[in-house]
Amino acid sequence: MDSTFVSIIEIIGTLAFAISGIRLASAKQFDWFGAYVVGLVTAIGGGTLRDVLLNIPSFWMQDSVYLIVTGVALIAVIVLGKFLIKLQNTFFVFDTIGLALFVVVGIQKTLLVGYPFWVAIVMGTITGAFGGIIRDILINEEPLVFRKDIYALACVIGGVFYWIGFLLQLPDEITQSVAAASVIITRFAAVKYHWGLPVLHGDDDA
Amino acid sequence: MDSTFVSIIEIIGTLAFAISGIRLASAKQFDWFGAYVVGLVTAIGGGTLRDVLLNIPSFWMQDSVYLIVTGVALIAVIVLGKFLIKLQNTFFVFDTIGLALFVVVGIQKTLLVGYPFWVAIVMGTITGAFGGIIRDILINEEPLVFRKDIYALACVIGGVFYWIGFLLQLPDEITQSVAAASVIITRFAAVKYHWGLPVLHGDDDA
Amino acid sequence: MDSTFVSIIEIIGTLAFAISGIRLASAKQFDWFGAYVVGLVTAIGGGTLRDVLLNIPSFWMQDSVYLIVTGVALIAVIVLGKFLIKLQNTFFVFDTIGLALFVVVGIQKTLLVGYPFWVAIVMGTITGAFGGIIRDILINEEPLVFRKDIYALACVIGGVFYWIGFLLQLPDEITQSVAAASVIITRFAAVKYHWGLPVLHGDDDA
Repeated sequence: MDSTFVSIIEIIGTLAFAISGIRLASAKQFDWFGAYVVGLVTAIGGGTLRDVLLNIPSFWMQDSVYLIVTGVALIAVIVLGKFLIKLQNTFFVFDTIGLALFVVVGIQKTLLVGYPFWVAIVMGTITGAFGGIIRDILINEEPLVFRKDIYALACVIGGVFYWIGFLLQLPDEITQSVAAASVIITRFAAVKYHWGLPVLHGDDDA
Repeated sequence: MDSTFVSIIEIIGTLAFAISGIRLASAKQFDWFGAYVVGLVTAIGGGTLRDVLLNIPSFWMQDSVYLIVTGVALIAVIVLGKFLIKLQNTFFVFDTIGLALFVVVGIQKTLLVGYPFWVAIVMGTITGAFGGIIRDILINEEPLVFRKDIYALACVIGGVFYWIGFLLQLPDEITQSVAAASVIITRFAAVKYHWGLPVLHGDDDA
Repeated sequence: MDSTFVSIIEIIGTLAFAISGIRLASAKQFDWFGAYVVGLVTAIGGGTLRDVLLNIPSFWMQDSVYLIVTGVALIAVIVLGKFLIKLQNTFFVFDTIGLALFVVVGIQKTLLVGYPFWVAIVMGTITGAFGGIIRDILINEEPLVFRKDIYALACVIGGVFYWIGFLLQLPDEITQSVAAASVIITRFAAVKYHWGLPVLHGDDDA
């Protein structure tokens, strides 16, 4: 993919992820700094865990843009406040596009380090979904991603499409676009048609 | 220890740890994917933290068996459901054998990297007990390991026996067997006789 | 700064951080081992995350003093019990001095690895504040640092003063003393005058 295009999408995705973290922190009455940290961790947490596991320098330590974009997200939430609720659908679109890109980037980086494809799919999923998990741990809630819609699974599906494109030796651009599209389509369809995975029932259930 | 023997015990331990995670996730009504993630993290979390701290590649990224065994654990919980409760005692045995092996492997790896013995004992304990701590964080409960029976302490005791065997220059196989046995015996005795560490009372207590 | 002086302050800071963790664990009725782990993680958690992100060996794996000091903290809490409450103000002083030193050490280490200053400020803040965040996650509470007084922000302010001293090419000792003093003064003033950051209000607020 064109690198300027990727950079723009990455900023949009970071902004959408940070705003989701900041808004959830605001519901817990965190102060501005706490909300900033939750937003930042939501945006960079997945990629950071990926980079630690791949034993490469964390991406956000190479470029201050992620900290700056999170600051913009904080200002946006403070200034716009309740008006943001009306943009719910816009956020959903941004968040999903960001998710798709994060998955593709996570897979690319893992393959570059030389790991096999199944590790790359795990890392793509971690990149996309782990930030939201740390966010929910920080605000002391059960991770949403484990109960709501198809979220982490959309990352896995994107990874499988990437793999198929790779096995078919399609050009990189096409493989990556197909993988990203499969994440977006899965997520949109899951929300529209209320798809969800079966719930695992506890031992105590009747 | 014989490497095939170790591999078999490792798979049994991974299965037991994963099942414990998946069952606790099911009590929280997580979906299948969420339960899989909790099971996986329970099984590989301790070893992953150890490998990150030792700055060596994470063990589960070298071999897909851990992801596959966790999948088997998920299927077992879905299919067998309530029947698993009757196997409680069997799980306890598997879990404890797995714990003992995880401790021994954690110590071995740390010594191989060249750290002194006290670091190896910490790493053995992290390998054995940290997966359960992350599991409890993910399901938003206070870590059980901090309040129930002798669990993490059994890991430390195993580490001390390993150290004694090392100081006495016993053959590796004997040292490792004694260390593993001390973990198992401590854990069994703690549960049978309801041993527990003293509770630390809060400032507000009467 | 003189290295013996630094070592003494580091031990005092570790002790104060460990005691804060152990006391919060005691309010949750953790057993002695659980309380020890929470105290240890509070004391070394921030520096450990910093070292993992910087890809250097974790500081506490090089010297057993941190584990020993945490043991001393546990014994102190067990033996002194309620009497500790009367020492509240003393702890606050120790804790703040420890915080200031942790920030300075975090910045120093990051600059030594070759990262730019903005990364160093982030790492100084992580060194100072992250241990308390992990502590609160382990005891299953919303992180205090996100809601109370000026804590993490004092770390950032210390980092900015370090940066100013660096840009003015002041001698290292002066820069570090000014940075540490700015952390201490900010924290003392915030508590004395009840300074706090604005709270971010949730979408549902009236």
